[in-house]
Order: sequence, then structure tokens, then C-alpha cells
Amino acid sequence: MMAGAQEQRLKLLGPGTGVSMYTIRVQMALCIKELSYDFLPEDPWSKSDLLLASNPVYKKLPVLIHTGRPVCESLIIVQYLDDAFAGNSTSILPTDPYSRAVARFWASYIDDKLFPSCIGILKTAKQHERADKVEETLAAFGLLEAALAECSKEGEAEALFFGGGSLGLLDIALGCYLPWIKAIGHLAAMPPFLDAARTPKLAAWAERFRAAEPVRALLPAEDKVEEYISTVLYPKWNAALTASATN
Amino acid sequence: MMAGAQEQRLKLLGPGTGVSMYTIRVQMALCIKELSYDFLPEDPWSKSDLLLASNPVYKKLPVLIHTGRPVCESLIIVQYLDDAFAGNSTSILPTDPYSRAVARFWASYIDDKLFPSCIGILKTAKQHERADKVEETLAAFGLLEAALAECSKEGEAEALFFGGGSLGLLDIALGCYLPWIKAIGHLAAMPPFLDAARTPKLAAWAERFRAAEPVRALLPAEDKVEEYISTVLYPKWNAALTASATN
Repeated sequence: MMAGAQEQRLKLLGPGTGVSMYTIRVQMALCIKELSYDFLPEDPWSKSDLLLASNPVYKKLPVLIHTGRPVCESLIIVQYLDDAFAGNSTSILPTDPYSRAVARFWASYIDDKLFPSCIGILKTAKQHERADKVEETLAAFGLLEAALAECSKEGEAEALFFGGGSLGLLDIALGCYLPWIKAIGHLAAMPPFLDAARTPKLAAWAERFRAAEPVRALLPAEDKVEEYISTVLYPKWNAALTASATN
Repeated sequence: MMAGAQEQRLKLLGPGTGVSMYTIRVQMALCIKELSYDFLPEDPWSKSDLLLASNPVYKKLPVLIHTGRPVCESLIIVQYLDDAFAGNSTSILPTDPYSRAVARFWASYIDDKLFPSCIGILKTAKQHERADKVEETLAAFGLLEAALAECSKEGEAEALFFGGGSLGLLDIALGCYLPWIKAIGHLAAMPPFLDAARTPKLAAWAERFRAAEPVRALLPAEDKVEEYISTVLYPKWNAALTASATN
């Protein structure tokens, strides 16, 4: 049976805050693939029945619903969109198998290592733990600087993006964090992480990424992220610290 | 320039112990794709220059080297083999985009949640933590039981494997852990996790998987895994506990 036009239309469940990097990542992919969709804002503190039914395992946002079927986890959603709409516009994943593997490797690294280190700077009150997290974060950006250099093939002009001439998986995997990275640096009273002296290629990439269509309009302002960290995350982390200290 | 025959040949760096589930997972993929390769055994306690140069980020095994270029992280390696040798034999990932997303979701779930819960049963000496890990593990297998039921399409015969009639990504993602799951249950003096009453489909799947060509010969004996846990992992965990207690 053919799904009706209503059911066929893509739906994206995400928090209404506008600062969720994983939801923004999926929105970037939808834009790159030139797909229209209905955004269904969710209250992250009161999970809807639709969310619980769509992502019973993690109960987390974002969730994409396509022809009535849910897809969860932002990197998996991006790959799904690229697969399911292979004919649309440009490809988000590189077409070369080795480049695909490299993009997948770094995208996971950013989620599993880089960002946890970076936000870990704010999560701890202990000076030596904070220093460790700063060091880990700078080392992670150093590795990505080298990875970006690898994207420019020998004898060719410098690659504009990780994806080459256009935005790819790794661009949106890292790019969705840019306002967060800036906000964390500011709240920690640190010099910018993406510094023209230390990581010149990444710093130039970040400038290009922020200005790039079609993702430009999706990035939240840095002060909106700062406010979210201050008013929502700090109290949450403090409550968790208090709970673990009294266990 | 064409790479020489020597350089073209696939190399797999893995521990020589024969019990590494992630190395076995890649070996299963190599077998399914009917690819021959050189196995380069590594000493996990003394990392070779080749390993450090091939996986400078995580310095972990396994690493696949193809035409001189390294690919790291077992699930990424499996997808790489499926991409790079798309013409070989059957496809490991489902061809339907939605089924691919589902397989990727559960494969990550197994690595990120199911196995850490399962081995967590042995890692803790605290009774209530152990009970939590047992509950988490049983809940995770319950979710996979339901996922396996979903693999049998309406009105069709029961699927032999997560991949349908043949072994796919999710089969090898979970199957590589089978001897570990048995060994952990035995060491914890528990009834089998994959029980015909509680998870009948998974229990039957595990029997079929263990007997399936071409992966049958790759699964280590359960007592070899038990011995590895007892003689290698227990002392390592105890040393870590002692270190953290004296910090």
C-alpha cells in the first residue's frame, strides 16, 4: 500500500530550544538534501507519547519519522537521509569507500571524545580535572587540524570543507558544535579553541562553515547557548553532583 | 600508480590471543566477503610501531590495512569492507536504507550498552551494582529479542538471521560476543542469558549463528574466554580499583 502524502512527509522531533546540536545536525542534513519536513517541537523535560513510542530505547531527541517509521541517533539519521534520498542533490557521505570510513571515524571521535572533553571543562570544579579536560580538548582539535589537512589532496588547492568542495558528514558532525565550542570557551574564560595560530586550517574552516549556505541560518547565536548552559545545564550538573556526594 | 600485489593484499592487525571480539568481528566480515588477508598478531601489552602509526588516535586493535591505508574501529572496518568490495559475494549491510539504519542503530547499542552492562556484572564487587547490571543486561537482551522478531516480515517465515536469510551486520555485531556472554554468565554463576524461555528467538538465533559457515571456526571456546577474563582482566580491574581507592 502506498503511504499517503501526509504520512510520506518527513517529520523531525527535536527540542524547541533551538540549541540542540544533534537536532541541528539533522536539520543541516535535511537542508543539504533539499528536503522539506515538519518540525515537531518537543519539551525535553516532559517526553511525549510519540517520542517514547519512536525511541523506546534511548527516549532521546532528535528522532526522524519517515513514512511512519522512526530513525534515531543523529549520525545514523544523517546516513539514512543520504541513503534514502540518494538521488537528491549532492551526497553527504563521500562516495569513495576509504573517505567514507575516514569521515565515519572522525564523526564518532567528535561525539565520543572531543565534545565530552570540551564540555567536561565546565562540568568539574576541580582545578586539575579542568586542566586535564582543556589539554584533551586542545589535543583533539590538533588531531582534527591534521585530518582537515589530509582532506586536501596532494597538489590540489586547499579543501574548503572536510567534504572537499561542499559540505559533508564531517562538516556537519563538527559544525553543529561550533556555537557550543565558542560558548564553552567564553564561560571558561579561555582564549578561543579554534585559534588562527594553533589550528589555522580549522579556524578558517569554521569561518567558512558559519557563512555557508544552507546551514548558516541553523546555527544558534553563541549567547543563546551560553544562556542555556548557565540556566539549564549548570543547575542539572550541580544537582547530580549533590546527589552523588550524598549517596 | 597501481599498488603492487604485496601492498594490495589486506592486512589485519589483531591481538594473538584469539579472544578479541572486535578482531573476530572483522574476521567474520572478511570471511563473508570471501577475502583473503594476512593476520599480523600484535602483543596488546607492547604496541608495535605499525599499530601506533596506523591508529594514532586510539592505539587500539583491530586495524585493517588496505593498499597501505589503515581503517580503525571494527564497525567502521566492516562497513568499509562492504563498501570497498561491494562486488564480492553477498552484502553485509542490508540494501534497504531503513534496514541499514536499524542495523547500525542496534550494532552501536550492542557495543555501547549491552556489552558494557554484561561485563559490568563481573567488574563490580558491590552486590547492588551487580544486580543493576544483571537487570540492564536482561533488559537489553529483551530489546534485541523484539528487534529480531521485527526482522521477520509480516506473513513470511521466521528470519534465520538479523540479516534475513544470510549473516549481516547485526549478526556479526552480536555474534562476536557469544562466547563472552556465555563465559560471563558462567563466571557470575548465573543461568544462561540467552534462555529459550525468556528470549526464544535469540536463543535459537545463537544456536544457528554458532553453527553457521563461514564464521563457525572463528568463535573461540567459552573456556578460553573464561581463562582470559580470570587471568588477564580480573588482575587489571583489581589494579584499577586499588589505584582509584588510593587516589
